[in-house]
Amino acid sequence: MNSENFLAGERLVNAAYVRQGWQGRRAHELRVRTLLEQGKCPEEGWDESTIELFLHELAIMDSNNFLGNCGVGEREGRVASQIVARRHYRLIHGIGRSGDIAAVQPKAAGSSLLNKLTNSVVLDILKLAGVQATSSCFVVPMATGMSLTLCFLTLRHRRPKARYILWPRIDQKSCFKSMVTAGFEPVVIENVLEGDELRTDLQAVEAKILDLGPEHVLCVHSTTSCFAPRVPDRQLWAVTLHCANPTFTRLKRNFLSCRIDAFVQSLDKNFMVPVGGAVIAGFSDAFIQEISKMYPGRASSSPSLDVLITLLSLGTKGYRQLLRERKEMFSYLSMEVKKLAENYNERLLDTPHNPISLAMSLRELDERNPEAVTQLGSMLFTRQVSGARVVSLGTLQTVSGYTFKGFMAHADQYLCSYLNAASAIGIKKEDVEMFLKRLGKCLKALRRGKDQQDGPLLPNVDMDADMEKCKIGEGDDPKTLFAA
Amino acid sequence: MNSENFLAGERLVNAAYVRQGWQGRRAHELRVRTLLEQGKCPEEGWDESTIELFLHELAIMDSNNFLGNCGVGEREGRVASQIVARRHYRLIHGIGRSGDIAAVQPKAAGSSLLNKLTNSVVLDILKLAGVQATSSCFVVPMATGMSLTLCFLTLRHRRPKARYILWPRIDQKSCFKSMVTAGFEPVVIENVLEGDELRTDLQAVEAKILDLGPEHVLCVHSTTSCFAPRVPDRQLWAVTLHCANPTFTRLKRNFLSCRIDAFVQSLDKNFMVPVGGAVIAGFSDAFIQEISKMYPGRASSSPSLDVLITLLSLGTKGYRQLLRERKEMFSYLSMEVKKLAENYNERLLDTPHNPISLAMSLRELDERNPEAVTQLGSMLFTRQVSGARVVSLGTLQTVSGYTFKGFMAHADQYLCSYLNAASAIGIKKEDVEMFLKRLGKCLKALRRGKDQQDGPLLPNVDMDADMEKCKIGEGDDPKTLFAA
Amino acid sequence: MNSENFLAGERLVNAAYVRQGWQGRRAHELRVRTLLEQGKCPEEGWDESTIELFLHELAIMDSNNFLGNCGVGEREGRVASQIVARRHYRLIHGIGRSGDIAAVQPKAAGSSLLNKLTNSVVLDILKLAGVQATSSCFVVPMATGMSLTLCFLTLRHRRPKARYILWPRIDQKSCFKSMVTAGFEPVVIENVLEGDELRTDLQAVEAKILDLGPEHVLCVHSTTSCFAPRVPDRQLWAVTLHCANPTFTRLKRNFLSCRIDAFVQSLDKNFMVPVGGAVIAGFSDAFIQEISKMYPGRASSSPSLDVLITLLSLGTKGYRQLLRERKEMFSYLSMEVKKLAENYNERLLDTPHNPISLAMSLRELDERNPEAVTQLGSMLFTRQVSGARVVSLGTLQTVSGYTFKGFMAHADQYLCSYLNAASAIGIKKEDVEMFLKRLGKCLKALRRGKDQQDGPLLPNVDMDADMEKCKIGEGDDPKTLFAA
Amino acid sequence: MNSENFLAGERLVNAAYVRQGWQGRRAHELRVRTLLEQGKCPEEGWDESTIELFLHELAIMDSNNFLGNCGVGEREGRVASQIVARRHYRLIHGIGRSGDIAAVQPKAAGSSLLNKLTNSVVLDILKLAGVQATSSCFVVPMATGMSLTLCFLTLRHRRPKARYILWPRIDQKSCFKSMVTAGFEPVVIENVLEGDELRTDLQAVEAKILDLGPEHVLCVHSTTSCFAPRVPDRQLWAVTLHCANPTFTRLKRNFLSCRIDAFVQSLDKNFMVPVGGAVIAGFSDAFIQEISKMYPGRASSSPSLDVLITLLSLGTKGYRQLLRERKEMFSYLSMEVKKLAENYNERLLDTPHNPISLAMSLRELDERNPEAVTQLGSMLFTRQVSGARVVSLGTLQTVSGYTFKGFMAHADQYLCSYLNAASAIGIKKEDVEMFLKRLGKCLKALRRGKDQQDGPLLPNVDMDADMEKCKIGEGDDPKTLFAA
Repeated sequence: MNSENFLAGERLVNAAYVRQGWQGRRAHELRVRTLLEQGKCPEEGWDESTIELFLHELAIMDSNNFLGNCGVGEREGRVASQIVARRHYRLIHGIGRSGDIAAVQPKAAGSSLLNKLTNSVVLDILKLAGVQATSSCFVVPMATGMSLTLCFLTLRHRRPKARYILWPRIDQKSCFKSMVTAGFEPVVIENVLEGDELRTDLQAVEAKILDLGPEHVLCVHSTTSCFAPRVPDRQLWAVTLHCANPTFTRLKRNFLSCRIDAFVQSLDKNFMVPVGGAVIAGFSDAFIQEISKMYPGRASSSPSLDVLITLLSLGTKGYRQLLRERKEMFSYLSMEVKKLAENYNERLLDTPHNPISLAMSLRELDERNPEAVTQLGSMLFTRQVSGARVVSLGTLQTVSGYTFKGFMAHADQYLCSYLNAASAIGIKKEDVEMFLKRLGKCLKALRRGKDQQDGPLLPNVDMDADMEKCKIGEGDDPKTLFAA
Repeated sequence: MNSENFLAGERLVNAAYVRQGWQGRRAHELRVRTLLEQGKCPEEGWDESTIELFLHELAIMDSNNFLGNCGVGEREGRVASQIVARRHYRLIHGIGRSGDIAAVQPKAAGSSLLNKLTNSVVLDILKLAGVQATSSCFVVPMATGMSLTLCFLTLRHRRPKARYILWPRIDQKSCFKSMVTAGFEPVVIENVLEGDELRTDLQAVEAKILDLGPEHVLCVHSTTSCFAPRVPDRQLWAVTLHCANPTFTRLKRNFLSCRIDAFVQSLDKNFMVPVGGAVIAGFSDAFIQEISKMYPGRASSSPSLDVLITLLSLGTKGYRQLLRERKEMFSYLSMEVKKLAENYNERLLDTPHNPISLAMSLRELDERNPEAVTQLGSMLFTRQVSGARVVSLGTLQTVSGYTFKGFMAHADQYLCSYLNAASAIGIKKEDVEMFLKRLGKCLKALRRGKDQQDGPLLPNVDMDADMEKCKIGEGDDPKTLFAA
Repeated sequence: MNSENFLAGERLVNAAYVRQGWQGRRAHELRVRTLLEQGKCPEEGWDESTIELFLHELAIMDSNNFLGNCGVGEREGRVASQIVARRHYRLIHGIGRSGDIAAVQPKAAGSSLLNKLTNSVVLDILKLAGVQATSSCFVVPMATGMSLTLCFLTLRHRRPKARYILWPRIDQKSCFKSMVTAGFEPVVIENVLEGDELRTDLQAVEAKILDLGPEHVLCVHSTTSCFAPRVPDRQLWAVTLHCANPTFTRLKRNFLSCRIDAFVQSLDKNFMVPVGGAVIAGFSDAFIQEISKMYPGRASSSPSLDVLITLLSLGTKGYRQLLRERKEMFSYLSMEVKKLAENYNERLLDTPHNPISLAMSLRELDERNPEAVTQLGSMLFTRQVSGARVVSLGTLQTVSGYTFKGFMAHADQYLCSYLNAASAIGIKKEDVEMFLKRLGKCLKALRRGKDQQDGPLLPNVDMDADMEKCKIGEGDDPKTLFAA
Repeated sequence: MNSENFLAGERLVNAAYVRQGWQGRRAHELRVRTLLEQGKCPEEGWDESTIELFLHELAIMDSNNFLGNCGVGEREGRVASQIVARRHYRLIHGIGRSGDIAAVQPKAAGSSLLNKLTNSVVLDILKLAGVQATSSCFVVPMATGMSLTLCFLTLRHRRPKARYILWPRIDQKSCFKSMVTAGFEPVVIENVLEGDELRTDLQAVEAKILDLGPEHVLCVHSTTSCFAPRVPDRQLWAVTLHCANPTFTRLKRNFLSCRIDAFVQSLDKNFMVPVGGAVIAGFSDAFIQEISKMYPGRASSSPSLDVLITLLSLGTKGYRQLLRERKEMFSYLSMEVKKLAENYNERLLDTPHNPISLAMSLRELDERNPEAVTQLGSMLFTRQVSGARVVSLGTLQTVSGYTFKGFMAHADQYLCSYLNAASAIGIKKEDVEMFLKRLGKCLKALRRGKDQQDGPLLPNVDMDADMEKCKIGEGDDPKTLFAA
C-alpha cells in the first residue's frame, strides 16, 4: 500500500478513516526504519503483525518473488512445495555468496538485508549481554562444533606450521571433535582440583606450549560454558586463538583481559531458537571477516531468520528479562538442591565460579549400590526430566580415537559421582519445581531399594497425574500398549 | 517499507539491488492499486504472496492493530488466542455497522475496504458469469435459507398486507423453511410433468395469485438450482419478489426477461469456499440496499474474506476455466451414466433443461426389491461416494409442520425411483470416474442379491485399494476396530 | 500415528525413545478424550500444538478430506484456494443441516463434533460465569441483533396474535432494529431517573402490557449490557420472552429469579473472538432447540471454531483470570476518572449498578462551549483512543423509521452531556493508563481554548511519541502526506 | 485421536458417521505406515493435510512438546518466539548428536524419525534419478562447498600424507574454495578444447598424479554440473576420492564405471528447496558413515524438513514429471536460442555433452563493441532476467589467493565471449518464452547502438507491461522515486 493505493482506497471508504489507517501503517514503518537505520535490537519487542509484515516486505524484494521475473539459471529460488515456501516466508535464496557468507546477493536484496540486519542485531545483543568489546560477528548455519572447525581452518592459513591445539579438558564431545575434524592434534591439559571445583591448569598450558614450540601450536581452545564441577577459567593468555563457546556471564567476567581471537556461541542455547546455528564473533573485524570468507558457498538463512524474529519479538527489554530470570532461577535451584541433598546425606558441590550448572553429589547412593547411580538417570528420563545428567566415576570412553577416563567428569577420577542440573536461559519456575519433586521421589524410591515404577509410586502427585496416566511400564508389550 | 525505509536499506545493501527490490515491490502495489481503483476481479489470478501481503496491509489499517491504540469500549477487536488472530489475518472488527451491513466502520478502515472490495469483485463475477444486468449485491455471512428469510422480512415492510408466499414445489428443506421462519404461509404449487421433466405449473401460480388476492401474496419464491428431474422455470412473471437460489447458467438463460426483485446464491456452491455465506443480489440498487440495512448488527467478515481471497487467486481466467470444466464434466457424466444405466435395464432420465443435476432411473431395481434402492444409497455412502442421492417413491416427510408426499422427488408420485448425481463447479474428472466405477460395482453386487461388503467384493480395484484397506465391516466391534 | 506406525518407527529409531514419544502423544490424546467425554472447558488451557493437532484430527474425519472420496453432489466441501482451506483447518462443511443448525452432518463427522463440543464448552463457561441455571445453548454465526430477530421469529409461532414487543429504552441501534426486522412493532418504555441512574420503568411496562392486551405482546425485550448512566434491571416479569444481551456479571445478579425465555450474547464481547457470532441460550431445552431448528440451512463454522480454540487455549483458569482483571480494571478506571473529573470541575456519574460502563459528566465543558463536547470526541479519535463515547444532549436520530430524542443517552433529556468509557473483558492496564493520559491532555487543550494538534502539544510524552510521529495534521494534503 | 477418543466421539455424533471419519483417518495412517515401513518416496504425492498432520505427530514425540516435561539442562528445545516454533512445526532439537549427524537423539524421537526418513527417501530418489548404485546418503545443512570441505577433511584421516587435490578446472568459486578451506593445495588441470566443448584433460590428470606422487594426492575433485561450454567428464579413474557436485543426468551417464568415493549435491538445485543444504552420498556405507561422524555437533533440521515435505508432496510421480519437463524445456530453449542467435550472426555453441547449460556466442557483439557484452548482462538484470550469465574473455580474477585468467570461462582463452542459459529442474515454459523475448529486445537495442531503457523500448509487449510500469530509470533520483 503506497500513497496511490491509499488515495484509491479513499474512493471506497471515508477518507478520514483511511487516513487513520495510513497513520497506523506509518507507526509500523517507523519501527522498520529505525531498525534499518540503527541496526540495533529495538528496546520494546515487536508484535507478530509487524514482524510478519516486515518479512513479507523483505521477501518481495527477492527476485524469485518478482512478478515479472524469468529465470534461466540453475539457482533461481524455485520451490516445489508451497508449505516450504510459506514456512520460509518465501525467502529462498539463502545468505551470502560463494565468496563470503556475509556478502550481498544481487538476486536477493531482501535476503541480503535480512542477513545484514541479523548480524547487526546479534552484535548489539552480544554487547548488551556483557561482551561490550565485540567488534564484529556473523551468524552461521552450523553447529557450534562445526563453526569451531571453520575457525581452526581459517587460522591454519595464518599459522601454517601449527599441528597442535591445546585443550584444557572439558568433557563435551563435539567440542573435542571440532579439532580432530579440522585436522589438528588435540593436546589434552588435565584440570586441577581446587576445593570441589575443577579448573584449567594454567601452568601446564604454558609448559606445554614451550614444550611443543609455540609455532607448532595453533591455539588454546577453551570452552567456557561447562558442566559443574568444571568452572570456566579466570585468566588466559591464549597463544594465538582462543575459540570459546561461552555464555555471556562467564565471558564477561573472565576473558576480557586476555587475547581472544574469536568466540563461538550456539544460537539455540543463547537465543532460544531451534538447534543448528552459531554466532562467530570477535574483537578484530579483519579476522572475523577472514572466517566469513572461508565458508565456501551460500548458506541457509533459516537460523538467521529465527534469530532475527526472536530478537525483534523480545526486544532488549524482553531479552534482559530472560537473563534476569535465569539468574534468579539459578539461585532458587541451588538453594533447593542443597536442601534436598542434605536430606539424603549428599551435598551440593561448592562450585561458586560456575553460574549456570551445578552438581549434587551422589556419594552415598553410589556407595550403597553402584548401579543405583545409572538407575537414577534412567528413572529421571522416564519421568520426563530432561537435561539432568548423572555422572558415574571412572567411565572409559573413546572420542574420535582418543580414550578418556572418567569422561563426562572432566577428570580421570573426580571426588564422587554426581548429578548435574542447570539454569539456562528460558528456564521456568515450574521446570525447577517439577524437577525437585520428581528427583525427590526418585531418591526416595531408590533409598527404599527399588524403582516401583509400575506400583502406586506417585499416587498423590497432582501435577504429575496426567503424565502418570500415559506412562508405559517396563514390561508392557508394545503391541498391546499402542493399541490402548 | 516506504521510501525512507528503502533509502535506509541502501546503506546496508548495494543500492542497485535495493532498487531492483523496490521495483519488484512496485509490481505488487500496482496490482493492488488496480484492484482498488477498478473494483474488479483481476484477469490473472494473484499469487499467495501478493494476497497475503495485501491482507496484512489491510489489517494494519484497523484500530486493533494500531501500535498506539488504547481501547476503553466494549468492542475493541480484542482477541484472546493468537491462533484465532492469525487465521483472520488480524481482521477482527467484522463488516458493517449496526445501521447497515454494507456500511463503513470508523474503527476499521481495512475491514471496511475488504467489505467494499469483496462486494464489488463479486458483482463483477456475477456479471461475467451471465447475469449481466445485476446492478448491486452484497455478501452476507448467513446460509442461503436465512438470507432468503432476510429478503422476505425486508419485503414485508413494502407489502404489509401480504401473508402468503407462492412456492412452486422444489424439494429442498431450507428453501421451504426460509418462508416459515420469516412468518409467512407457504402456498405449495405442485409441478407438472413434461416428458421426464418436472416443471413449474405457471397457470396454477397465476390462478393462485388471483385466488388469494395479489395484495396478500408477498412474492413467488422460485429456486432455480434443483435436483433433476425438476428443471428450472423458463418464464416467470413474479408478482413482486422473486427470490432465487440460482446457479449462474440457469439464471442467465431463464430469468432475465422477468421481474426479479432479488436473488440469493450460496457462496460455497458458486465460489468454492466454506459453507456459511451467501450473496444477495438484484437489479435495483435501492431494494438491495434496503435489504442490507435490514440486517441488525455487525457481521462476520470471514465469508467475505474467503470469497475475496478465492477470486483474487483464481482471477477471471481461472474462474472461467472452472465454469468450462464443469460443463465438460456434465457432458461426460451424462454420457457415462447413460451407458451404465443401459447395462442395467435402467435409463438416464431425459431432463435437457437441467444443466447441472441428472437422474438415472432405478425402476427395475425397485421392482425386483424395494429395499435395494435404499441399500444402494447406503452402499455408496460407505464407499465414500458423496453427493449421490437415491430417491425412493412416495416417502412422507414433514417439514416445518407441512407434510409432503414423495419428498425429495418434487412430486407426490414421480414416474420411478432414481439416483441423482451432479456436476457442480470444482468437480474433477477423477470424481466422475471413481463414481462410475463404484456405482457399477454396487449395482453389480445388488443384482447378485447382496452387498458383499466384507467379502472380496473389490479385489482387483487398484484405485480403490487404499480405501478398502481402511474400511470397517458392518459387524466389526468398534472397540477392536479402533484398536487396530 | 497409530500403534502400527509406532512399531514401524521402532525399526528406524531406538524403541525406548519411540515409546517415550508415544507416551508424550498419550498425554495429548488424554486431553482430547477428557474433552470428548466431559464436554467441558478444561481447567488448564491447552497449548497451541495440542489445539492444532486436534483440529487436524477433526478435519480428516470430514469427507472432503477423505483420500478416496469422490463427490458428485453440489455441496462437496470443495475449496479453490489453499489459503482458505488452511485458515479453516480444512473444516469446510459448516455446521448444522437444513433442518437444524445444531444437527449432525453425515458428510462431516469432524465438523459435527466441533459444533457439538463448542456448544457444550460454551454452556460450561456460561454456567461458570454466573448463569448456573442455563440448560442449553448454541453458537450461531450471526450478529447479536440478527440472533434476536431469529428468537422473535421463533416466538411468533408460539404467540400468533402478538404484534408488539415492549422495549425498555436502551439506545443501541441493532438492538432496536432486531424487532423491526422481525416484523414487530417496538413499544418504547421510557426510563426513570434514580439519582444519576436511568432504570427501566417497571410500572410502565406492566401498564403497557395490560393496555395492549397480553396476547398482543410478543415479549419484553430487555438489554442488560448498556452504557452508563443506564443500568440493567433488577426485577423483570417478562411476559413471554426475555431476549437479553447481557454480560455475565449483570445477568447473574439480576435475572435469575424472573422468567427468561432466552438470552443472546455476542461472542466477540464475551469471548474475545472476531465480530460476527452470538450464543443463544436459555433455561428450557425445548425452546432453545426450537430456535436452533428455525435457522434455515447450514451455517458457517467459523465463529464456532474461534470460540472453541479460544476457550481451549484459555482454560477455565485463564477465563476466570480475565474476568478478575476486568473487574480490577473497572475499579481502577473509576477511581482515576473520578480524580481527573474533579480536576476539571466535572464528576464521575454515580451509577453503582452498572459494573462495566461508566460516565464522566461534561457539564462545564458543554456550558462553556457546546461545540467542545463533539470536538473532544474527535480529538480522542485522532489520538487513537477507541471506544470512548461522547454523548451530547438532545440529539434527534431516526432508527428504522422511529425518531428518538436524545439518542445514545437512553432518555429524551438526560441531566448533562457526558463521556463513556468501559472496562470490558480483555482490557489491559496500559489501555486505561494511555486513555487517562490522552483524555487529560485533550481536556487541558480544550480548556486552553483550542486543539493544538499540530503544535508541540505532547512534547514530553514518551509512550505516545511514536504515534505522534505518525500523526497526520488536519490541514495536510493527502497527496503529499502519503508520499512521505 | 485414538480408539478411546473415537468411542467418546460416538456419544456426541452418530456412530456411523464417526466410524466413517475413523475410516478416513485410517487412510492417512496407512500412508504414514507405508512410509515408515518402506522408507521410500510414495508414488503419489501427499496432500498438504496429510503432510502437516504427520509433522504435528512427529513433533509431539519430541520432549520439548511433552506436556509434563521439565527441563534442567542447557539444551531443552526452548523457543522464545511462537512464530519460530510454528514455522518449524515445533521440531526444535535439530538432527544428530555430537557423535554423528545421522544419529538418533534420546530427547527427540520425532526429530530423529524425521532425520532417518529424510535420508532414506532422498536415497530412494537418488536411485530413481539414475544413480542406482548409491548405497548410502545423508542430508547436511551446509552449502555444497562446505560439504565438500567436510568430505576432504574426512579423507585426510585416511590419507595423512596427502597435500594436494587435483582439480580439473571448472570455474565456480565455492567449488574451488572448498579445497582451500580444507587446508589442501588445489592443483589446477587446464581443460582441452574439443570442437566448442571444454573437457577434462585426462592425460594431464594422470601425469600430474604420477608427478606429485600418488600418496601426496588426496583425490581428484571433479564437478560434473557445469556451465557450457564446459562439459562433464566421460571417464574418470579417481585416485582416491571423487567429490562430485553432479546433477543426476550426468552422473548416471558418466561415472558409474569409475571409483567414486562420495558425491555431493546441492538440495536447492536438485530438490527445489531453499538454499543451504546438500546431500552427501556414495557407494560405500562405511565411508559415508565416516563423513557423517565427522560433523561435530547437532545440526539444523530445517533443510531435512524442507526436502522431506517436498518429496512427500511431489511423490515419485511428480518428481519424474519435473525431470521430464526439464528435459523438454532444454530442447525448446536450445532450439529457440539457436534461431535467435542466427538472426544476430551468432551461434549456439555446439556442446552436446552438456544437457543442462547451453551457451550462445557473442562474438560479433564483442567485436563491434567490447563494452556491449557487459552491457547486455546489465540490461538483462534490470529486465528481471535472472540466471543468464554473460562471459567476457580474458578476465583476471583472484579466488582464495589463486589468480585465474578467463575466470568463468573455464579456460585462459576461450574461443569467444558468450551468454549462458540453463534449463534446470522446475523451469517453466513461460520462463523460457519471457527470456527469449527480452533477450531479443536487448540484442536489438544493442544493435541499434544504445540501451533505450527510458524510451519506448517495449511498447507492445503485453506480458511485460506491468513490469515496465514499475521500472526505475537509471537517472532517477531515489528520493523522488520511492515517493511515487
